[in-house]
Amino acid sequence: MDSLAELKNKLRNFARERDWEKFHSPKNLAMAMIVEAAELVEHFQWLTAEQSQTLDTSKLEEVRQEIGDVLIYLTRIADQLGIDPVAAAHDKMVINAAKYPAELARGSAAKSGDFSKR
Amino acid sequence: MDSLAELKNKLRNFARERDWEKFHSPKNLAMAMIVEAAELVEHFQWLTAEQSQTLDTSKLEEVRQEIGDVLIYLTRIADQLGIDPVAAAHDKMVINAAKYPAELARGSAAKSGDFSKR
Amino acid sequence: MDSLAELKNKLRNFARERDWEKFHSPKNLAMAMIVEAAELVEHFQWLTAEQSQTLDTSKLEEVRQEIGDVLIYLTRIADQLGIDPVAAAHDKMVINAAKYPAELARGSAAKSGDFSKR
Amino acid sequence: MDSLAELKNKLRNFARERDWEKFHSPKNLAMAMIVEAAELVEHFQWLTAEQSQTLDTSKLEEVRQEIGDVLIYLTRIADQLGIDPVAAAHDKMVINAAKYPAELARGSAAKSGDFSKR
Repeated sequence: MDSLAELKNKLRNFARERDWEKFHSPKNLAMAMIVEAAELVEHFQWLTAEQSQTLDTSKLEEVRQEIGDVLIYLTRIADQLGIDPVAAAHDKMVINAAKYPAELARGSAAKSGDFSKR
Repeated sequence: MDSLAELKNKLRNFARERDWEKFHSPKNLAMAMIVEAAELVEHFQWLTAEQSQTLDTSKLEEVRQEIGDVLIYLTRIADQLGIDPVAAAHDKMVINAAKYPAELARGSAAKSGDFSKR
Repeated sequence: MDSLAELKNKLRNFARERDWEKFHSPKNLAMAMIVEAAELVEHFQWLTAEQSQTLDTSKLEEVRQEIGDVLIYLTRIADQLGIDPVAAAHDKMVINAAKYPAELARGSAAKSGDFSKR
Repeated sequence: MDSLAELKNKLRNFARERDWEKFHSPKNLAMAMIVEAAELVEHFQWLTAEQSQTLDTSKLEEVRQEIGDVLIYLTRIADQLGIDPVAAAHDKMVINAAKYPAELARGSAAKSGDFSKR
């Protein structure tokens, strides 16, 4: 079992032992996930792009915990919906590669950095 | 190499081939990630908790793509910061287990479903 | 001068007196605003729709402060961009009325509650 | 009646005529609001802070519409909870002024631009 599957199982058990399953609808978990995503954004809001690349050790540890939190809720939503998130990401990259051929993206002066956009 | 490490490498190459590295500061990627998280939230905003658990096939496929998008940006931020997101999530769960002992959480009538909270 | 114009001026002075203007680009303020929006979402994430309508007094006061925070950053972004946010909202409602005629929206069983959607 | 009170009434009527009241719990409206906030963030995600201050006319109009959308949902949530959002913002600024005295904020090299923070 890889460590993401292990995380999924750990979250299942954690929720079951605390009787939290009734709270963990995909709707509620999506809300919890965006709250954690915002806590990550908060660390960067007043930094320049450059500063966001050179965090000091204590800030980096805080950011690391927020990244952990986002992945926790993302894993839990995916589990509740029967979705494999890594397979979903790989499939999405196939779509993105078709939408943004490397030559064209580069040729158009790379005005964006979007892996995926409508 | 597991499939999340493979995703990380695929994203690196994708960005390099398109000359997108200059856009991919942690600050900008955190913004892109919360935008994708919001696209997931959007699918659920007018649904009841129950409806969010029983999506039809086409809606589920859309949700699956948004989950893929969130994971894509999360993986990319983590890579730019030298963080292993799965290890971060596991470490965070150790903290959470100490903060929310199962007996207490259950005993307090489980008023929340938070894996992690300040 | 109405009280929203007064708020705009108060925020300008507050930022100037603290030498914060250099941080208040629309980009950074949009990040700060979504963080405040998430703090509002956080209050509701584990509640049912019904519970979210009947908050107790102390929770309601916390929610009131978050609403204040979102309006503060929204007013500040709009000011930095020379936009009148209330006029923008009224203009958007003209677009929405054309997009969602009352008869049709009602006739279609009102599957959504969107004032505005792509 | 000022134009924000007028907006509130317009939204009430709009929702009633379309039979949307059942969707407009504070919980659901908070989700809709953060989705609109994210659409604003999306406009800025790949821009530098400087570029976000000098939008061209068509981009500025798009941003103006997103600002309108955020205000629409913020006004609607506040109405559903019986809160005056402008009064809430003014009250919050009193708290902020006490928390960030101008002399101290300036003296500490203004490391942040936060109107309000925990």
